[in-house]
Amino acid sequence: MTSAIPSSKRPVIAIDWGTSSLRGARLGPSGEVLESRAWGRGILTVPPGQFESVFHELFGDWMQAESALCLISGMAGSRQGWQEAPYCPCPAGFTELGQHLLWLQPDRIALVPGLSCMNTDMLNTPDVMRGEEVQIFGALQLAGRDSATLVLPGTHSKWVQVHSGRVMQFQTFMTGEVFALLSQHSILSKTLDLNGAFEEAAFLQGVDQSQSAGSVLHHLFAVRTLGLFDRLSAAQLTSYLSGLLIGEELRTQTVNADLGPVILIGSDTLTQRYSLALQHLGIACQSHGAEATWAGLFALASACPQSNLFKP
Amino acid sequence: MTSAIPSSKRPVIAIDWGTSSLRGARLGPSGEVLESRAWGRGILTVPPGQFESVFHELFGDWMQAESALCLISGMAGSRQGWQEAPYCPCPAGFTELGQHLLWLQPDRIALVPGLSCMNTDMLNTPDVMRGEEVQIFGALQLAGRDSATLVLPGTHSKWVQVHSGRVMQFQTFMTGEVFALLSQHSILSKTLDLNGAFEEAAFLQGVDQSQSAGSVLHHLFAVRTLGLFDRLSAAQLTSYLSGLLIGEELRTQTVNADLGPVILIGSDTLTQRYSLALQHLGIACQSHGAEATWAGLFALASACPQSNLFKP
Repeated sequence: MTSAIPSSKRPVIAIDWGTSSLRGARLGPSGEVLESRAWGRGILTVPPGQFESVFHELFGDWMQAESALCLISGMAGSRQGWQEAPYCPCPAGFTELGQHLLWLQPDRIALVPGLSCMNTDMLNTPDVMRGEEVQIFGALQLAGRDSATLVLPGTHSKWVQVHSGRVMQFQTFMTGEVFALLSQHSILSKTLDLNGAFEEAAFLQGVDQSQSAGSVLHHLFAVRTLGLFDRLSAAQLTSYLSGLLIGEELRTQTVNADLGPVILIGSDTLTQRYSLALQHLGIACQSHGAEATWAGLFALASACPQSNLFKP
Repeated sequence: MTSAIPSSKRPVIAIDWGTSSLRGARLGPSGEVLESRAWGRGILTVPPGQFESVFHELFGDWMQAESALCLISGMAGSRQGWQEAPYCPCPAGFTELGQHLLWLQPDRIALVPGLSCMNTDMLNTPDVMRGEEVQIFGALQLAGRDSATLVLPGTHSKWVQVHSGRVMQFQTFMTGEVFALLSQHSILSKTLDLNGAFEEAAFLQGVDQSQSAGSVLHHLFAVRTLGLFDRLSAAQLTSYLSGLLIGEELRTQTVNADLGPVILIGSDTLTQRYSLALQHLGIACQSHGAEATWAGLFALASACPQSNLFKP
């Protein structure tokens, strides 16, 4: 999948419709972004039954091209979204994803399903993603690779194992959400300066501390006491807390270096922090941003049979 | 210290003044509770400079006995309290605690200092307690022991090592606060029934899961997916989350069985859960409730030199 350079005869409209935001891009024949738009119109802001009208309000002009082909990834395909696109079970590659597209308008507009997998723990707990699958295939495309460990940091971080173009297994970590809860609502919030500059040394102290024995539930309390005893400043403590939590996420991961550098996908702020932490622990990595989403949706659109229904 | 049965010639007024609550007891010559009172007048509700008047408003009648001796433990001795009673550094026993009493009214009213220790981790992070030290010595007194591992579950759980009557080391875990944050403010809150009955089997599944490989930041996400896939009910998920977090706390502890059963101190609800989890992991334990606070304050009052200043 990753060796073929995709191209599409039909204009591709790529949409990433998440919980709290909505982004769209009109792509050219080689996947280049001709125009992009973003709104705070995540699915939580859309009343049931209103998805189609919101879509046409915001993207109707792009869809006027009779031959336009639109793929939508993210929470729009969840139970709370436009329509539920059932999860595609892992192992799953590009082909399976294409086969599970949920067509909202025949051959014109489709929802990309999320992926599910069963963890190999004692309860075989399920894991799920929606939207990240497109970023994963997009980043692999951009990196020209078909096997890798990928990390998608965020509210719910994902660690993903891809072999020969198929997602074999992945794990979600509530790292970003726990950071937000602790820094905004816990006793630690009184000790932190959330607007302070990022302090690399304190961040890495947090990463190191989380690799040592003991539970993160205990390490967290030191964010309070290190402040109480004037050992770290309020800005340093925020970076230290970030390092503790990202470090805790990394602590339980074993990365197969034979697969090449870990691929990080996300915002600059987050990928820079994960990159720092990974390199500090001796793990090579490379980063991709929003372009991975457009690349993934474009490749998926180009590969699906409908892309050949070219109408001049 | 634990072998001598304390008695006091002076009437002892025992006060536990915490962050959100205030409890007091008037004790008899052998430490028996003659009368007790409780209010939601924790230190956060008291404006600076008003502690003395609140104290006299609520306990003035008890203090009318000219010979009354009053000890106050808890956050009243913190920087935000009545007056700051500096932490007494560990190792610390009953004697050190008595020597560090902060007298607010000579020979009449004293604040009990909290304890501090330095963790043996790479950063030598500090740890602190205020109020629990009194419960620890009280529970040891009641159990007739001078060496034990003690656990004080709560918003900030404490694991404490006591040898020969001295607190050698302790560790704080943010277990209770993290449970509250996740169950009230996180995405998991949508999946949980917080008013459902306690489900022992689901709780123990959580305990088991947390002992397995992997990070608690990952295990937490399964609280969402086990609901999404209808594997556990909303009430079961609440118990499962509780088991995950208490289990994570237990995971990193090694208990020396030669010291006898672990001593749990706290509310019935919490000590029952910890007791279940500990026994499930093959660790014997015994529990104490609020009586440990009064026993500790009484023993401390009886042992201090001021207790001999009997005024008939």
